Amino acid sequence: MEKVERMGAQQPRPVALVGGRVRLIDQTRLPQELSFVDLHSPEEVWQAIAHLKVRGAPAIGMAAAYGLYVGLAKQSFGDSAELGRELESIASYLQTARPTAVNLAWAMNRLRRCFLSHRQEDVQSIKDALRDDALAIQREDETACGQMGEHLLTLMHDGMGVLTHCNAGALATSQYGTALAGLYAAHERGWRVKVFADETRPVLQGARLTAWELQRAGVDVTLICDNMAATVMAQKKVHAVMVGADRIAANGDTANKIGTLNLAVLASHFHIPFYVVAPQSTIDPDTARGPDIPIEERAGEEVVQWQGIRLAPEGISVYNPAFDVTPHELVTAIITERRIWHPPFAFSGTGGG
Amino acid sequence: MEKVERMGAQQPRPVALVGGRVRLIDQTRLPQELSFVDLHSPEEVWQAIAHLKVRGAPAIGMAAAYGLYVGLAKQSFGDSAELGRELESIASYLQTARPTAVNLAWAMNRLRRCFLSHRQEDVQSIKDALRDDALAIQREDETACGQMGEHLLTLMHDGMGVLTHCNAGALATSQYGTALAGLYAAHERGWRVKVFADETRPVLQGARLTAWELQRAGVDVTLICDNMAATVMAQKKVHAVMVGADRIAANGDTANKIGTLNLAVLASHFHIPFYVVAPQSTIDPDTARGPDIPIEERAGEEVVQWQGIRLAPEGISVYNPAFDVTPHELVTAIITERRIWHPPFAFSGTGGG
Repeated sequence: MEKVERMGAQQPRPVALVGGRVRLIDQTRLPQELSFVDLHSPEEVWQAIAHLKVRGAPAIGMAAAYGLYVGLAKQSFGDSAELGRELESIASYLQTARPTAVNLAWAMNRLRRCFLSHRQEDVQSIKDALRDDALAIQREDETACGQMGEHLLTLMHDGMGVLTHCNAGALATSQYGTALAGLYAAHERGWRVKVFADETRPVLQGARLTAWELQRAGVDVTLICDNMAATVMAQKKVHAVMVGADRIAANGDTANKIGTLNLAVLASHFHIPFYVVAPQSTIDPDTARGPDIPIEERAGEEVVQWQGIRLAPEGISVYNPAFDVTPHELVTAIITERRIWHPPFAFSGTGGG
Repeated sequence: MEKVERMGAQQPRPVALVGGRVRLIDQTRLPQELSFVDLHSPEEVWQAIAHLKVRGAPAIGMAAAYGLYVGLAKQSFGDSAELGRELESIASYLQTARPTAVNLAWAMNRLRRCFLSHRQEDVQSIKDALRDDALAIQREDETACGQMGEHLLTLMHDGMGVLTHCNAGALATSQYGTALAGLYAAHERGWRVKVFADETRPVLQGARLTAWELQRAGVDVTLICDNMAATVMAQKKVHAVMVGADRIAANGDTANKIGTLNLAVLASHFHIPFYVVAPQSTIDPDTARGPDIPIEERAGEEVVQWQGIRLAPEGISVYNPAFDVTPHELVTAIITERRIWHPPFAFSGTGGG
């Protein structure tokens, strides 16, 4: 596949391994400020993931992989077995930072396998191998996002309108993004694509992150509130919905940011294709169906206040699930780096569809 | 119909005529503060309506009726014709404060008719008649809301879950509310009703107003973000959706707060009844179909900042329609003070269904 330099490549990387530290864009400070934080330990990485300084399923996986390496690199070990025990301890800990995105467990499992295949080597060689594998996760994600963009292009046309939710862009991945990869690719070709970005309450990833990165890249983006999606669809301004995913079950049921199910139902009603875009690693063949996916419920404070300003009365009950599950019947296609998967979906351990 | 003292009756009145002034709850300051403002002129009333200090279709109509009376009361007129010209001038002006809610024009037209039927009287008598008619609008609305509550009860059951949007409660009407009237009535009977209140971006009437007034009344209310509606429906926690209306066309197409169409589509998908609750005066037989209803588009600033805090990047394009139109096919029933109207809807000038 031809290598195209995407507009998304101009975006700063949300996650990087720099000088033995994990460097993140602090996404809680966008769009006011593009600032970076350096994390020196698995504990700091755990906090950054739990508090959404880094978010987006692929980016979380990368941050955790680097966090695991950083935690091991600064310690001395008598032998590889000792390193292996510490690796297991840190990996298990990092996996608890957030429950829904499977990429977190996937990245930890990948480094577990890396250790196993290098366990006969000396401690420093194992550390080097883990570092290289963590870096490879990011490099492969970058390639994968580019390939998702190419696949998406085959589903797109010049002049189309696309609705997206949350942030499945450069800030959620290595670069380019998943759901936004096609938009960057289309923009690069000079296609006029009109994007509607749901603001995505309560954390406003659409308003703060997607609007910010698409605006930076020069893509035509219009911000709407989540509850305006039906209106722009009824006005025939939307020709496709493109969203990311945090976990895709074997049958195609998809967990993604809360509000995705709303869009899938609306898209079905208005006869608009609904595309889920994610790396192959987001498919979890060990999870049979959507109801088996653990859904993170976050603190009600996210809903009732914004930077200290109350938005609702004190003491009000709040329900704040961070994700919802879209049943496979509402998914038109799932786009990964490998191919476009059409229904019926039946993903196995080897990725068969 | 038996007069029941509703929990909603404990709510402070959002609009009142007090000592020749229009007294409003400043709804922009809720839930932080329950504060009142006194308005002395039609200009002040116009500003209060445009800037959402008072909102909700019935409450807007009342505020405008009082504003018209206050504007006339403080002036001297040589004869009734002179008063009539000024009445027309103020009424036309007040009607421009917001375009979608038909109750505003309805209230102005009612006072125009009141003037015509009293034009032979002296100036003071005409002023008195206008005051009495403006007060009657509020009194009749209170009765109407109580009757809507009684009709709604016949569609409800103990233990049910109800999803509502925006604020169609005591704060939007004289008292009791429209969509919330049934909840107050059920609560009064000791039924356990679990309410899910959409926060209702961008102005958060659900979070700031509905949550506040239901909590005050002791009704079990849980706040959700607009994009969580599909999830609580999928979880079978919602047995009916109840919303207000700003204008109902002759064919039943209904304009209401942005996000209502989303809910109607979701309710249809999840086989949940979708009820529109409004006074008969919200039905506009002169508007044939939904697409004929003027939809107010408000400033993007409402979406991109909250009390001075930026929520999205500077310079971002925003689409901010304040209302949407739900086609009649998605409406299970329309509940007014007169009766429960079932499809097919065909409202005429005499209110026939």
